[in-house]
Amino acid sequence: MLGLAGDSGSGKATIAAGLVAALGADRAAVVSMDDYHRHDRAEQRDLPETALHPDANYIEIADQHVELLAAGHPVLKPTYDHHTGTLGRPVVAEPREFLVVEGLLALCSPRARACYAAAVYLDTPESLRRRWKLERDTSERGYREEEDHDELDRREPDAEAFVRTQRAHADIVVRFAPVPERGESLDHPLSATILLRPTIAQPNLVGILTDEHKEAIELTLGRDEYGKPADILHVYASAPSALAREVAAGVWAQLGGTEAVPESLGTLRSGSRSPTLALVQLLLVYQLIQAAQA
Amino acid sequence: MLGLAGDSGSGKATIAAGLVAALGADRAAVVSMDDYHRHDRAEQRDLPETALHPDANYIEIADQHVELLAAGHPVLKPTYDHHTGTLGRPVVAEPREFLVVEGLLALCSPRARACYAAAVYLDTPESLRRRWKLERDTSERGYREEEDHDELDRREPDAEAFVRTQRAHADIVVRFAPVPERGESLDHPLSATILLRPTIAQPNLVGILTDEHKEAIELTLGRDEYGKPADILHVYASAPSALAREVAAGVWAQLGGTEAVPESLGTLRSGSRSPTLALVQLLLVYQLIQAAQA
Repeated sequence: MLGLAGDSGSGKATIAAGLVAALGADRAAVVSMDDYHRHDRAEQRDLPETALHPDANYIEIADQHVELLAAGHPVLKPTYDHHTGTLGRPVVAEPREFLVVEGLLALCSPRARACYAAAVYLDTPESLRRRWKLERDTSERGYREEEDHDELDRREPDAEAFVRTQRAHADIVVRFAPVPERGESLDHPLSATILLRPTIAQPNLVGILTDEHKEAIELTLGRDEYGKPADILHVYASAPSALAREVAAGVWAQLGGTEAVPESLGTLRSGSRSPTLALVQLLLVYQLIQAAQA
Repeated sequence: MLGLAGDSGSGKATIAAGLVAALGADRAAVVSMDDYHRHDRAEQRDLPETALHPDANYIEIADQHVELLAAGHPVLKPTYDHHTGTLGRPVVAEPREFLVVEGLLALCSPRARACYAAAVYLDTPESLRRRWKLERDTSERGYREEEDHDELDRREPDAEAFVRTQRAHADIVVRFAPVPERGESLDHPLSATILLRPTIAQPNLVGILTDEHKEAIELTLGRDEYGKPADILHVYASAPSALAREVAAGVWAQLGGTEAVPESLGTLRSGSRSPTLALVQLLLVYQLIQAAQA
């Protein structure tokens, strides 16, 4: 089981969908923690806190359901319809070999975190996240652009207090962002910086990456925001795809996989492929498969 | 925790409401198993089985919720609206000191039965049950009389196969019915026959009932439908209320209760009081309080 948190529009659904596609829908599924909203969109508008506040969600029930699923039991999961903003009848969620628990608050509770093989936080820069969120909300969730801006402003205090604080609980922090020193902007394919904390067993990248990769994919030893040692993997958008594939194959080989790296990794919402996203997803697939083998 | 099963219109809600009123709404609550219907009324009409069939209900989830509540955990319970026949958003049900789990199939599963201090089946005669069901459905659930008759006929095979078979699992079987030998009819206050199986510790009625009570309240030694020994308590509608009160006080005293017998016992849907119902409910309160003291 993987926990995947990040603010609205940070890319959770895209990452999770790729993991399920790679592992197979018969063995893997996504559980969305946003289904545990206590209030529908209209009710929430009249309340002082936003949907990002733990009190606006059935956190204790979500914890219980994550625990039950982790123990191999089905649960009757509530449902929240993002398109209409309404709460519907619950549905049965069956346990699977691999589960991705994704949501605004997926890492906020110690009970849920205790069930995850890896806790992942998407630290998408605000400018990029706002752009992604706006694109999705206006095209898929029936928001007008001004509404979306108003909501982003209204959510900011809760995002600061409850969403971004989850970064501290992540074993892996993923930040998709352009690297200005390399002349990249938001309109280019994205580079990524991946913080790999030694709180879990990460793949041995030192053994894979050589000087030849350095310009494209680089591992540095650094410190996280608390001064604790961590690996930092830089995946540059300019990396030749042959090199990115080589690194991916190396990580995959460490799992003892004999088949090829799953082709479905790296698929963007638009349908095109990003080698950066593929490598990020592969690091998460690594955790899921490793946990299943343990 | 008490399990209370019986067919639609058998009197489950009336009995359960009186138990909660007697024990106090702060300490006791009802969990309705009918909330675990998989389908709304319109969907169910198009299916071969009726809502009485276990497959038409989330039995496994209901079992899980009963177990969680018994262990002191809250659950996110589905909801079924009997007035509109629709499934709504789920609600949190908190554990309580005393819980009455009532429903068409409350005794059908071994997992749920294992949580009950006592399993109770309402064996209301069909003629009486149809009358009660019709009164309620046309006044409270928006049915027309013909619809209700049609539904009763359609439900008969599932009622026979899944509802009435639960009688075998009950520690206490309650049958409200007129006693023709005493000139009683459905239009009189009702007598009751209560089968008390020795599968649980029942109150010592032998020590309470004397020859003086015999005409009004009588305990006989008999056999159940499988030939197994059981106590059979006859409470006649003609019992003078002073005698009924005396017996009730005797049962109550065996619980070590120093206060008076709760006044709320015996309240009918109409608001009037039935000493017969009060005595039946007291036998169930006895089980709940005894279990809490154990």
